[in-house]
Parts: sequence; C-alpha cells; structure tokens
Amino acid sequence: MNVVYTHIRRADAKVVSGLARYGVATVHEAQGRTGLLGPALRPIYPGAHIAGPAVTVSLPPADNWMIHVAVEQCQSGDVLVVAPTSYSDAGYFGELLATSLAARGVRGLIIDGGVRDVSELTRMGFPAWSKAVHAQGTVKETLGSVNVPVVCAGGVVNPGDVVIADDDGVCIVPRSEAQAVLKASEDREAKEAATRERLKKGELGLDIYDMRDRLAKRGLVYRPQSAAE
Amino acid sequence: MNVVYTHIRRADAKVVSGLARYGVATVHEAQGRTGLLGPALRPIYPGAHIAGPAVTVSLPPADNWMIHVAVEQCQSGDVLVVAPTSYSDAGYFGELLATSLAARGVRGLIIDGGVRDVSELTRMGFPAWSKAVHAQGTVKETLGSVNVPVVCAGGVVNPGDVVIADDDGVCIVPRSEAQAVLKASEDREAKEAATRERLKKGELGLDIYDMRDRLAKRGLVYRPQSAAE
Amino acid sequence: MNVVYTHIRRADAKVVSGLARYGVATVHEAQGRTGLLGPALRPIYPGAHIAGPAVTVSLPPADNWMIHVAVEQCQSGDVLVVAPTSYSDAGYFGELLATSLAARGVRGLIIDGGVRDVSELTRMGFPAWSKAVHAQGTVKETLGSVNVPVVCAGGVVNPGDVVIADDDGVCIVPRSEAQAVLKASEDREAKEAATRERLKKGELGLDIYDMRDRLAKRGLVYRPQSAAE
Amino acid sequence: MNVVYTHIRRADAKVVSGLARYGVATVHEAQGRTGLLGPALRPIYPGAHIAGPAVTVSLPPADNWMIHVAVEQCQSGDVLVVAPTSYSDAGYFGELLATSLAARGVRGLIIDGGVRDVSELTRMGFPAWSKAVHAQGTVKETLGSVNVPVVCAGGVVNPGDVVIADDDGVCIVPRSEAQAVLKASEDREAKEAATRERLKKGELGLDIYDMRDRLAKRGLVYRPQSAAE
Amino acid sequence: MNVVYTHIRRADAKVVSGLARYGVATVHEAQGRTGLLGPALRPIYPGAHIAGPAVTVSLPPADNWMIHVAVEQCQSGDVLVVAPTSYSDAGYFGELLATSLAARGVRGLIIDGGVRDVSELTRMGFPAWSKAVHAQGTVKETLGSVNVPVVCAGGVVNPGDVVIADDDGVCIVPRSEAQAVLKASEDREAKEAATRERLKKGELGLDIYDMRDRLAKRGLVYRPQSAAE
Amino acid sequence: MNVVYTHIRRADAKVVSGLARYGVATVHEAQGRTGLLGPALRPIYPGAHIAGPAVTVSLPPADNWMIHVAVEQCQSGDVLVVAPTSYSDAGYFGELLATSLAARGVRGLIIDGGVRDVSELTRMGFPAWSKAVHAQGTVKETLGSVNVPVVCAGGVVNPGDVVIADDDGVCIVPRSEAQAVLKASEDREAKEAATRERLKKGELGLDIYDMRDRLAKRGLVYRPQSAAE
Repeated sequence: MNVVYTHIRRADAKVVSGLARYGVATVHEAQGRTGLLGPALRPIYPGAHIAGPAVTVSLPPADNWMIHVAVEQCQSGDVLVVAPTSYSDAGYFGELLATSLAARGVRGLIIDGGVRDVSELTRMGFPAWSKAVHAQGTVKETLGSVNVPVVCAGGVVNPGDVVIADDDGVCIVPRSEAQAVLKASEDREAKEAATRERLKKGELGLDIYDMRDRLAKRGLVYRPQSAAE
Repeated sequence: MNVVYTHIRRADAKVVSGLARYGVATVHEAQGRTGLLGPALRPIYPGAHIAGPAVTVSLPPADNWMIHVAVEQCQSGDVLVVAPTSYSDAGYFGELLATSLAARGVRGLIIDGGVRDVSELTRMGFPAWSKAVHAQGTVKETLGSVNVPVVCAGGVVNPGDVVIADDDGVCIVPRSEAQAVLKASEDREAKEAATRERLKKGELGLDIYDMRDRLAKRGLVYRPQSAAE
Repeated sequence: MNVVYTHIRRADAKVVSGLARYGVATVHEAQGRTGLLGPALRPIYPGAHIAGPAVTVSLPPADNWMIHVAVEQCQSGDVLVVAPTSYSDAGYFGELLATSLAARGVRGLIIDGGVRDVSELTRMGFPAWSKAVHAQGTVKETLGSVNVPVVCAGGVVNPGDVVIADDDGVCIVPRSEAQAVLKASEDREAKEAATRERLKKGELGLDIYDMRDRLAKRGLVYRPQSAAE
Repeated sequence: MNVVYTHIRRADAKVVSGLARYGVATVHEAQGRTGLLGPALRPIYPGAHIAGPAVTVSLPPADNWMIHVAVEQCQSGDVLVVAPTSYSDAGYFGELLATSLAARGVRGLIIDGGVRDVSELTRMGFPAWSKAVHAQGTVKETLGSVNVPVVCAGGVVNPGDVVIADDDGVCIVPRSEAQAVLKASEDREAKEAATRERLKKGELGLDIYDMRDRLAKRGLVYRPQSAAE
Repeated sequence: MNVVYTHIRRADAKVVSGLARYGVATVHEAQGRTGLLGPALRPIYPGAHIAGPAVTVSLPPADNWMIHVAVEQCQSGDVLVVAPTSYSDAGYFGELLATSLAARGVRGLIIDGGVRDVSELTRMGFPAWSKAVHAQGTVKETLGSVNVPVVCAGGVVNPGDVVIADDDGVCIVPRSEAQAVLKASEDREAKEAATRERLKKGELGLDIYDMRDRLAKRGLVYRPQSAAE
Repeated sequence: MNVVYTHIRRADAKVVSGLARYGVATVHEAQGRTGLLGPALRPIYPGAHIAGPAVTVSLPPADNWMIHVAVEQCQSGDVLVVAPTSYSDAGYFGELLATSLAARGVRGLIIDGGVRDVSELTRMGFPAWSKAVHAQGTVKETLGSVNVPVVCAGGVVNPGDVVIADDDGVCIVPRSEAQAVLKASEDREAKEAATRERLKKGELGLDIYDMRDRLAKRGLVYRPQSAAE
C-alpha cells in the first residue's frame, strides 16, 4: 500500500541545532561509528553543511511523482531524503522542486539517484547529495510512499531522524538517540581540541595515544634502511 | 576507409546562439527527453556553459592522432566531439591542443575518454567534458575519421549537430531539429518562469500541476504517523 | 615481518624543488610515459600542486594504525603515500593526522583508499589525493610496514622516490632517475613553450609536427561532405 | 555495544519450505516488489536455490572474527547473512568456515563483501552470494554483533527473516509477513502458469493483458517502415 | 512521438545463416573493427551463439511495456534488442516474455539493462545478453517506440540489422553491408585457418606475419637478463 | 628503451610443481598474505588451476604487438602475464595467440585488460584471467618490453616469479621465496586438514581456535533476543 504519513515525530529542534555544529565524521564517531550513508553520495558543490529532521520518500526508479507529494509534508528546517526502490541514474530533482522546497525552508536534499540543474541549485545555495548528476527527465506515473523507513545508499533512514551532511557525506542519527549523540559529539570535539593543540606543537600521536608499547608487543621492528636498497 | 569530411553543414549560427541561452536540462526536455550523452561525462571545472556545432572525431583507443587532424576542420564557435572506438582512460587531450583550438575560436571539448593538463585548461577557460582526468600520454599511429557520425557516451552525434554542455552534462540537438528545439526551449522556459514564481510564493506543485485527484485515483492514502512507531 | 625503516635515502632536495615546477603530465612524458598512478586517485580540492620525497606506508584494509607510526618518520617536505594491502573505501585519514603531518612540514597525502574531514583539510590547505571521501572510521589493531616498496593505485612507489601531484593526478619519479627526469622536463617544457607560441598564432600541429605526408601514406582521404548526408 | 542475540525467533519452518519452491523473482513480486538485495550480489556458481531463516552478522570491514562467533548461533536450515559496516572486497569466508556451517546444516551464505575457496565451495555444494571473489585474508581483531538488524547490499535483514536466493539474486521476506507472502507466491505462480500456457501457444501478452486500448489512448501509433529509411 | 514500425526490411535470411557460422570477433574484424556493443553486455549463460535480424525497442528506464508491444513485431529468427533511454538496472525481462518470444521463434535478447528468471531462461535455452541480472520488477506506464534506431551499450542498432552474439559479446552488422561482411568473414576465416595450422606446428607469428624487421626498425632490443637482477 | 630479456631465471620446476598442488588462497596465506593480484581479474571459465613461471609483457593500451614478441620467449610450463601501461578494455588476446602459446606448452594467460574468442579458449582448455571479455581488436604499432617487472592488477610481477591462478584469482610468489612458500603451504595445508576434520565433526572454531576468552575480554555480550523485537 502507498501511504503518506502526515504527522511524523521530528528530532528536537534544539538538539538538531546542536548537532549542526559538528561535521559528519565527528557525529559518526560519536554514535559509535554507525549511521553513515555510502560514499557514492557526493555533494553537488563543496562547502555545504546542513542538519535537519528527515522527511523520507520511497519511490520507483526514474519516477519523481512522490517528490511532489513529499514537498507538502516538509517543514522549515527539514531535509528531504529520497530512495528509489531500485537504482536509476536519472535526474529526479531540479531547480523547480528546489524552489518549492526552499520556499518552505527545507535545508537540502539527499538522493540515492541523480539530480539536475546543478548550476541553478548552486546559485540558489540549495545543497544536494546525490549519486549522479544527470539531466535525464523522469516520469510521474507510479506511486510510492512518504515518511516510511527507507534504505538510502546502504543506510536506514526513518522519518524524523536527524540528517547531517557535509563535504564528507551524510550521517543519520536516529531520533531517539539524538540527544545522547549530541552530548557525545560535544565530548569528542572537546577531547579532539586538546589533542589538536598538542599535535600542532609537534607532539606525536604515538606518544599522545601511548601506542609505542602496544606496537612493540605486537612485534613492530625499527631498522635503518637496508644496505641492499 | 578513413575519411576527413571537410565541408560539413553546421546548424544555423543564430539558432545556436539562441540555444546557448538554455541549459542542458531545458533543451533535453524541449526536444522530448532525447539527446543526452551519458552522465559519466563530467566537466573538468564547474560553471562552464557552451553551445556550438559539432566537429566529430572517431579514433582508436589511446591514440590522439586524429584530434590533430580535426583541428584544421574546426571553425570559430565549434565544439569538438571525440569518440574512441573502444574505451581507454588515457589522456588524449591537453593544453597544447586546447591552445590550438582556442586560437581557432573553438568553444570546448567533449570526449568519451580522458583529458590532462586540467589546471591549465581551467586557467585558459577552455572547458572539457570527459570520462576521466588522466595524464597518461597517447600515441599517434593509427588513423580514424573526422566528421563522421559517432556514438559518444551512449548518444549519437552527427557533424554539424548542436552540442549544449553545462554542469549537468551534454545534450545533442540534431541540426535539422535545432530551430524547432529552440522554439520549444523558449516556450518551456516561459512556462517554467511562471511556475517558478508561484512555487517561490509557496504554492505547491500538487496544486499547480493538479495532481491530487490523479494521486487519489491511483490509491494514495494519507495517514498520521502510526502509534507503533 | 612488520618493519619501519627509519633512515631512507631521499631524492635530492634541489632536484625535488626543480621537479615541483612541472606538472604531472610533463614529468610523466619526460620520463618516457611511466610512473603515473591510476586515474581513480583524485584530489580532494582543485588547484593543489606538490612535490616531495615519498614516505611509504603498507597497512591492512580499514586500519590506520601504521599512519600514526609513519608520522614520526616524516621530515619537512615529504609526501606520505599510503597503500592498503587490499581495497577498503574507509576514511583512514582526517584532520588530526593532517595537523600532525603539517606540524612536521609534510606537503600532502596520497592514499589508495578514503579520507575524511575534507572541509577541514581544504581550509588547512593540506592536500590529499584519494580514491574516496568517506567519514567511516578505521581501527588500530594490525601492524603494517613503513618505508617499504608499495603498489599504490597500480604504480610502484619506493621510499624516497619523488611524488609529483596536481589536478591531473599523481606521478612517481624513482629517486635514482630524478636528476635526469628534471633535465628532460626542462627540455620538454622549453620545446613546448615554442610550440605553444606557434599554436597561439594559429599554426597547425599538422604542419608544426609535419604530419601531412605520413597521414597521406597511411591512406587518409579528404572529402567534402557527401550529398547523401 | 557488541551483542550476540542467542535466541532469535525464526520464520516458521513449513512456511520456509513453502517459499523454497519459488524463485527470487516470484517472491519479490508476491510481496509487492520489495525485499530484493542489490544486483551486485552474485552467486559463486550457477544453479543454487536456497531458502532459510537469516542469522545476521554485523562486522568491521576486512575482519571476519564475528563469523566464527555466528557459527555457534546457526541451526540446521539457516542462512548466514554477513554485512560489513563499510565496504571491503577482502575474502571474509572460505572453505573451513563453510565446512563448519555445513556440519550444522546451514544452507548458504549471503555476504556484502568477498569470499574465497570458491572451487572448494562449489565442490562442497555450499552456495554463496557475494560482491567479490577474492583470496585476500582478513583479520580477527574487532568485535561486531550477531543477530542484530543489518543492511546488506542495500536491503534490511532482520534475524529470523526468510532469505530466498537463486541465480537472480537474493530476496528477504520479513518473518511476520512470510505466511502471507507464501500465499501470494502460490497465487502468483498459479496465475503465471495459466498465462505461460497461453503464451506458449502463441497468444500475445498484448491480448492476454488487454493492453491495446490503453496503448492507443496513450497515443501509440503503428506505421509501416518509412520510405526514407 | 511514439511509433511502432510494423514492416521493417530484414537482412537476407541466407546471409544471416551464413554469418551465424562466425563468431563475434571474426565478424567484427571482417567489417573493419566496427559494430561491437560494449563489453558490459554479458551472456546470462555460457555457450550461446546466435544471429538474426534486429527488432529494436526504445523504452523508458524501469518500464517494460514496450517489450510486450515489440513481441508482436517479431518473426521467427529475429533477435530482440532493447535500449532504455537512460540506465536502470531493473529486470525488464523474464521467463514469461521469453516464452512468448520463443513461441514466435525469436532467437534471443540483447538488453542494455537487467533481466531476471535466468535459471528458467537457461533451462529454456533462451539466451540473453544484459548488463545486469536483477529480479526487480518494472512498470508498464510509459510509451516508447519499436523498430526505430537505438543506441544499445554504446553501439547503433537499426531495425533489420544483423545481430551476432556469442560468449565474446554482441556485434551489429548493418543490413546493407551484411552480404559484404559475410564474404569478408569467410575470407578471414579461411586465412586464419591456414595460420592456425602453422601456429599449431610451432611456427611463430613473428615469422608468419613477418614482424622482425619492423620491430628492429622501431628500435626493439634483445638482451639476456641483466646481471643486476 | 624497449627491451626483450631473453634469458630469465625461472623458479625451480620442482618447486613450481609443488606449488601447483595448492590454491591461490592457501599460497597467499602461506606467504604472509601478500602477492595477490586484484579481484577484478576473473577466469574466463570455471575450474582452471595453473602454476608456472611468469613471462611478463609491458605494452601500450589497445596494442598487442608485444604479445607476439613474447611468445618466442615462452617455454613449456610458463604463464604469460600482460600489463598495459594504462587501462583499455580491448581484446588483446584470442584464439590464434592461444594456439601459438599452447604449441609451446604455455599454461595460461593473465592480462590486465580484455580477451576474446573465449568460447574457443574454453574448448581448447587454454585458461585466461582478465578484466574484461571484449572482441574489440587491437593494433600492432607501438613497442613495449618483455620480461621486465610489471604491475598487473595492482601487484608486482617479475619475470620468473611463480604465478598461481585458480577460481579465486591470481597470486604471485617471488622466485627467491618460492621454496619457502612451498614449505609454508604444505605446513598450512596439513594444519588445515586437521582443523577441517574437527569442524566436520561439529566442533566450533570458537573452541578450536580458543577464541572465547579473548572475545569476552574485548567485551562481547550474549543475550537472548530482546522482548521488544
């Protein structure tokens, strides 16, 4: 059955704002190295960094009808996540849909497929992470669903989960864990800041992380370069 | 037989200028969703947007001899389209060939293979759409043909056809249809401009395109999020 | 056995400085079209151009422990070259390791795998050439070796070899040939400069390189476009 | 936290036996075109066709320790489903693990990674569906989890779900829907058997499915081949 | 406009029978190294070898409606060639369509997309060359055309052209050249038969093809292995 | 300079015969998990298993001239290893070259490129491991070298090294290590035989390899399936 869920529970706005201060790598580490979508998702322009609750779309390959349906379900601050039921590199999304989403305050698009009008999207400052850039038009013939759980680029996204996206890719934080992951991100960043200062001064990770003994126990040997070379 | 056709019929210059105002996605839609080359062709730098009649080159893999031959057949405003007879990711094209083409007023390169010297091409403002960036040199040993029909990245290109290329990729407009496609592009753009204004104000595509009835007839159901979730 | 070679012979610093003036394509041609690493290695941001002696790392897939070990072996001006023993697209390298390497004067990273924190690396001006951008964290569990010969993206890299990297990719010059390749690069560039001036004035490569006779002997035919077309 | 769930609820054995009579395509259609894992999963030899409840493994890339842990959780008739947390093409699985699983009556392996010893697996008749065949050994250093939900080749697999695999790939039927999907598969197969007989006799799908009117309404035109051709 | 051309001119049946005696490699060479479709097209089972006139289908991605339309246009001995307007890896074709085509005497399928039911197709002896095996179902919503020129896997196919397919892939012989290519194939095969006998007896290609002088002129040097090695 | 080394030192014939008894996975493990060529090299038919000293060929992309030169350097029992200087998927090798090599007793081909005539090669029982099957012909225009070190599919191969190839792929054993690797393979196989018997009887790897303590120390937790599920 094809359903549009209209009242999803979104992650708390303050928590989302907090998470927005951290990059994908930090958040991914902070939640135990989980939640990343696959590296084939690339931003259409460098430098974008967004966070927001997911509105999810499951749709047929090469058919973007349900994106039009999903727009109405989006609120200010949301991120649209689109997952075709099988892969097609067609251009499901372009400048008109971006205009409509931007008018509602949507922060960006994640799509396991192609986008087009990337010059216009760049000019508008509407970021998208996609598997392809392709002008190929799609049809509007077959239903899908909105705000159901989807698998996008190898990761599960539930409606209302927090999406974090930057130049490194896309990370999903489950709604119920968002508060805890924010706290863990803050802790991790604080710890890294201290390490960063020491590394800048020339201290070695080998010493900071106390690795020398463990390396020696595993059998690592140091040698001057062999004469034969 | 290896032939260089020396007097090709080019699409009308005014029509080409007209088409140059529109992006690849618009032109592709305007000619009935045909003419796109495959999405593996990517621009070597963002922001380029060109249009011009195609001078076509069919050549052996990893051999760029025929590009040297093709330069002489190029006129100001042309776009060079290069299609190896089988795939090689070698760098068929670099800064010296670009200098020679730029001196003749050629607008850019489309190649179903690799290019090199991309820093220099970027500095020169000579755009190229390619499948790879690779410094690997090629040989000059085996003939091909110039200004014959070629298949480039999955699309047919005839000499004199209009090539449109931008950040979305590359679209080919057959010479004989260029005038009609220009008209259709103008119409499409006018229509989209009106839609864009309505979307900006927050109207929904669902209403503008009158989709609600058709969605309901297909069986789309709206529900508040289930308690179980 | 897992070994760290601590005193490698580096290519002469003056020769490295000399080679740094030339791009990857020039150096590759100057050493007889050898030494390129594969085109799947792409820079994380455009415009970087570095040269330096290689410090090499062989490590297990998805384990970056040996990079921490390798940092200590790096000197100012070096380039770190990392080759996993089998492919994983995980993010072996990020901003903290880059901070540590930058503190030692290392010029950049070449890795047959993934990197993360690319926004930060871009801001720091620490360039990297990689096969993937992926935030996925790696473990620190299994030993590898430092300053052993490695195969990286299909090319052999010995410690102390000169690495040249720019927007075209990465080229390796064996230490023992660096002086000769520098000379050949200078010669090639001088020759190309003269050719470039002639091409800019509109002379054709066909004439500059004296190709017309050889093309005719091979059987190339010139024809006006056929009436049938 | 790394957990091994030791008492999973498996799909009913009779239902599994029923589903085993149908191929992946039939079952996928019968459950509404859902549940397929991605087409990059290929069988290591042709002709295998299995069905069984999933025992799932989430493990780090290039580390097969948790497969050894998972063996103990397998019962006769199960299918082992292995999903690394990021991609590595290493050979996580070979003949010794297959021997151990076969001794327990396990029916086969689904892995979003590489396998090795494929000649021996073929001789043993122990089928595997994998993304790569690669002899590269893995380590046993880092924990994962057993019988947690995983994403494998783009599809969600929960422990106890039914796995169907044949030459077409792999389909997952959620445990709670297995009975209904079996019924739908039976219905579909019965209907297709009737259609098959009509098609064999030369009737056309155009007529059997009553498509001619709808095609005409959409505007399909029939013409003898144009003279120009 | 979407058109079905109903009376195409097919290559002469005797010529097709003649070409059927030769493999893809021979025919490709005999027509001047042209006509091959891309190597991503692979047979679903080894050992099939077919030849026949092409009935061509252009259809939207992930929509197989037009294949049903095309069946009616097929005659005994034909080969169906299916080219989506953009790539989707869905399974456009399975056992029911194969049953229908087999009932009409069609020899096989070439598709720039996915197929399913490959076990059944193998049992039926209905060969297919495809880019993917995927059970994913397609829709029947959008029109395309039958017996128009298509680009399939990078090569042009016109209706009525001869398709040759074997374990090496797929080659297209234009209808108008089929007679000449048959003659050239016979000549080539005769010549190769003689060469084969000489090679079997241990004569070297270097001598049979008289390559030694040309190699020496190009500068090839023979040396015993260096002492340093 | 292009050189043919005519008298290479081959690995000892008895050692080669010994290694031929072991598969690629065993030999790769026995030499410390090194020596594998990349998994993109696949056998053209299943079931082949060869071992022999390497005769190596470095040649330009899409040019097979040097293979003709290399034939003369091959002795009975050798394996030909062909590595283009950059990638092309063309068909460098077919049935006539195989006939010539078979007449000299060569055991098979490893090529980082494409092959053709795979039906004939299969009938002849002449195995090949390649990256592509493609009928596309190559030229004979540009020199390369024979019996120089090459990088093939990401691994280094020196002339005279032992090549082991089976359904798992290809492994290279350096000539100087062949005797030691043979001994290690024998030891490994003996040890695995004992383990295999225990596994067959239902003992668990967890116990045979004594993993339980180490898993517990790392923190692995066992739980019955949660009620919530």
